[in-house]
Amino acid sequence: MAKNEAPKTAITPTRNEDYPEWYQQVVRAADLAESSPVRGCMVIKPWGYAIWENIQRELDSMFKATGHKNAYFPLFIPKSFLEKEAEHVEGFAKECAVVTHHRLVPGPGGGLIPDPQARLEEPLIVRPTSETIIGAAFASWVQSYRDLPLLINQWANVVRWELRTRLFLRTAEFLWQEGHTAHASEAEAREETLRMLGVYATFARDFMAMPVLEGPKTASERFPGAVDTYAIEAMMQDRKALQAGTSHFLGQNFAKASGIKFQTKEETEEHAWTTSWGVSTRLVGGLIMTHSDDDGLVLPPRLAPAHVVILPVYRGDDTRAKIDEYIDGLAKELRAQRFGERRVEVEIDRRDIRGGDKQWEWVKKGVPLRIEIGPRDVDAGVAMVMRRDRSPKDKSSMARGELVGRVTEILGDIQATLYARALAVRDGNTHVINSRADFDAFFASTGGKEAQGGFALAHWSGDPEIETAVKDAHKVTIRCIPTGGFEGAPWADALTGEGQCIFTGKPSPRRVVFAKSY
Amino acid sequence: MAKNEAPKTAITPTRNEDYPEWYQQVVRAADLAESSPVRGCMVIKPWGYAIWENIQRELDSMFKATGHKNAYFPLFIPKSFLEKEAEHVEGFAKECAVVTHHRLVPGPGGGLIPDPQARLEEPLIVRPTSETIIGAAFASWVQSYRDLPLLINQWANVVRWELRTRLFLRTAEFLWQEGHTAHASEAEAREETLRMLGVYATFARDFMAMPVLEGPKTASERFPGAVDTYAIEAMMQDRKALQAGTSHFLGQNFAKASGIKFQTKEETEEHAWTTSWGVSTRLVGGLIMTHSDDDGLVLPPRLAPAHVVILPVYRGDDTRAKIDEYIDGLAKELRAQRFGERRVEVEIDRRDIRGGDKQWEWVKKGVPLRIEIGPRDVDAGVAMVMRRDRSPKDKSSMARGELVGRVTEILGDIQATLYARALAVRDGNTHVINSRADFDAFFASTGGKEAQGGFALAHWSGDPEIETAVKDAHKVTIRCIPTGGFEGAPWADALTGEGQCIFTGKPSPRRVVFAKSY
Repeated sequence: MAKNEAPKTAITPTRNEDYPEWYQQVVRAADLAESSPVRGCMVIKPWGYAIWENIQRELDSMFKATGHKNAYFPLFIPKSFLEKEAEHVEGFAKECAVVTHHRLVPGPGGGLIPDPQARLEEPLIVRPTSETIIGAAFASWVQSYRDLPLLINQWANVVRWELRTRLFLRTAEFLWQEGHTAHASEAEAREETLRMLGVYATFARDFMAMPVLEGPKTASERFPGAVDTYAIEAMMQDRKALQAGTSHFLGQNFAKASGIKFQTKEETEEHAWTTSWGVSTRLVGGLIMTHSDDDGLVLPPRLAPAHVVILPVYRGDDTRAKIDEYIDGLAKELRAQRFGERRVEVEIDRRDIRGGDKQWEWVKKGVPLRIEIGPRDVDAGVAMVMRRDRSPKDKSSMARGELVGRVTEILGDIQATLYARALAVRDGNTHVINSRADFDAFFASTGGKEAQGGFALAHWSGDPEIETAVKDAHKVTIRCIPTGGFEGAPWADALTGEGQCIFTGKPSPRRVVFAKSY
Repeated sequence: MAKNEAPKTAITPTRNEDYPEWYQQVVRAADLAESSPVRGCMVIKPWGYAIWENIQRELDSMFKATGHKNAYFPLFIPKSFLEKEAEHVEGFAKECAVVTHHRLVPGPGGGLIPDPQARLEEPLIVRPTSETIIGAAFASWVQSYRDLPLLINQWANVVRWELRTRLFLRTAEFLWQEGHTAHASEAEAREETLRMLGVYATFARDFMAMPVLEGPKTASERFPGAVDTYAIEAMMQDRKALQAGTSHFLGQNFAKASGIKFQTKEETEEHAWTTSWGVSTRLVGGLIMTHSDDDGLVLPPRLAPAHVVILPVYRGDDTRAKIDEYIDGLAKELRAQRFGERRVEVEIDRRDIRGGDKQWEWVKKGVPLRIEIGPRDVDAGVAMVMRRDRSPKDKSSMARGELVGRVTEILGDIQATLYARALAVRDGNTHVINSRADFDAFFASTGGKEAQGGFALAHWSGDPEIETAVKDAHKVTIRCIPTGGFEGAPWADALTGEGQCIFTGKPSPRRVVFAKSY
């Protein structure tokens, strides 16, 4: 590209040129987040945080509608609590932030050092997840079957000392919600586990416009300490999978570790059955990668901080007053419309900068509808409307009344369009694979460039060694054993039948999904 | 009290008998929070957390209405950041959680120990407040006067290693919001500082029904690193003061420490002027202590998780269906009413426990309105209504239609009554003090019991040694130099005139408020 030639896309590089770098540039161009001076921790900037607030609000209302109440538990977990569940230790002790002192004092070199006199008797770790500390509380709250089910959720920050981090997708500190429930029977706890998996799947589809497969994980991919882990798995535009939420049936493991016991109706004493489930700020990463294009972020209207941005095009100071008046009236009429549970959110950008720059800024921020108003639009009682799901050059003039009357319909149409596109990407890159050779070709790296493949639906006999071998050979893992989220897909029928493992020839009850993943 | 005699109050001890213990018992009886196994950290239980959620929602909308946006910054602060501002170090290094390692490994004794191979090069502290880490972000965000003002708020958890903790009032970890803003001029930053103090005062009065004095702190009570600290100060029922929120004008101190510089319109380079302001879960403690009585929690309707609880009184199973139908209809009609920005929130308690126990449970949880429905109420189309601001024995029968039509009016009346009572406590226990002898008597301990005094309005010459002496003698501090929040009080006029310091006889520009405090 010659030096003076205008770039063809607002984001450089494009998705095809360098997907990981494209992602970073989309995040930067939309001003969503940035790295911080603290290793692995990010700063979530207002536009990114507003998306998270919308995610929180919708999920929170879904949790409450299913009977859960919010509470808050300590940030710190005593080392001895972590030690209570063997697999849990294994999973989290290796990368955690350890608090050892409670004071800093001037050291010999002048700078502050941890005060040797203020060493904690027992180190605390910053919660990587809260099963053990919440389990301790549940143990005292639950006495009788009458106290069950206990349905609690917490919105919190957690820390896992990740070495390789990426904004939103993998950070040392992240924000999440963690549901923790206790039940009187295995059946009820299993039902809860699946109910919340269903809540996540519904949220992903209806709000994020992101299709997901639902199903259990294989044993090797389970949450440390869980009996069963279920996940929702989405496909990003580079055809890699993103685990977007998990729901765990914990059996009685944590109840035994924490002593959550109850008296049954029959006056016997039993350990409760518990679950936990969570989604995190990683969802924002999934949202970005599912919909954004080479011009930047594309926001599904249901989660957009602003649905509409109005951009006045002043032609000299004498047009300013009449344009402003028109815009204020239009904004008021738009805000009076409801889109789902929210009013239509409108931003007005009156800044005195070049019109083209202003346009591109909002393109890159992903606002679903841009509305340009110049003096002639005011005279004609119209507005120039641009949809983020269409080409930036695609403008159409609409009468003011029609725009106001149809704005929620248009937003709904954008939402549906984004879902349909994401579904087409997912379904088109999901393949039924019937032989080892096809499998290897599907995921093989060619020409020095890594092939991402897509979702490979293949039979597998349940052998963990095969999983390990495939992971070593291709960095491919089994994302889940799909039980939902594929209705209507061209390959849906292939998912339900029995067959033979493509690696061992042994019988297999159903196909699993292999993919590279985040 | 004889063993079989019913207690006269639901809470033992009463406020008069032992105020601190009464507080703990109110918290316990309302199931708001409890201590955790982690030293100084509390578990906020669903009923307590729901109050905090209501506080959050109202404040958040007030912050957004004044132009602030939410963002999120790292939990950890590198030691070197804390060291950037001298007074700040002094204030926070003494009691902070220090992270020194990022892994636990099995130690020689079998238990986990911090891995000596995984020691951090630079210790991190868990944020006690975020001026320094947010300052680093602001330094890169602010380049020009066009980037100002920068108006950011964060909802987060913070940790200060307190030795003596009390649920909500003082805990090692607490939840709060911290506003951080940067401005192009001192005047604008000062205006922001006072604007947010005003937001806090309005919130305290209109939502918490808690009267507050507003005004600057003396130099010795300033936030470490601030040029000026302003506070809202409330009086609890034991006549001690509670600092309920603070707003700091930070001058250019933190801008210089963090390098927040901008190019002015005149193309010179200047440091920005910054502010910070915060309230925390301590507000829940203030709410409890302002309104609760010897029967437990009393919730101001504006922040109550439920406005109304409906208690069916079944008389045998044959009445159950008709009572349930009546209750469901009534609940639906009540929920269709709006109280401020919220709908009227209704709980229905159908549990099969003794009616009296059920009544008292909701009394102790502080729900503004209790409604009892028995079979005869159904037949007559009425409801038995009890207000939490009146005696538990005070019941009145209301026609169903009247109840629905008047419910928001009644809730408003309860809110107003609670405010008026709190104001009467505050104003009645605030005294104009004109001599050292009267001052000593006001705060003197008598008969082995500590006198709390109340608010003493006295002239003071500004001498910090006097402050220290008074603190040593009586544990009394200057809460603020009141500039607002006293309009209409019987002693309001005394606050504005000049006079002579009661300790030194030197001239004093205006009276300050002395009090014991939390």
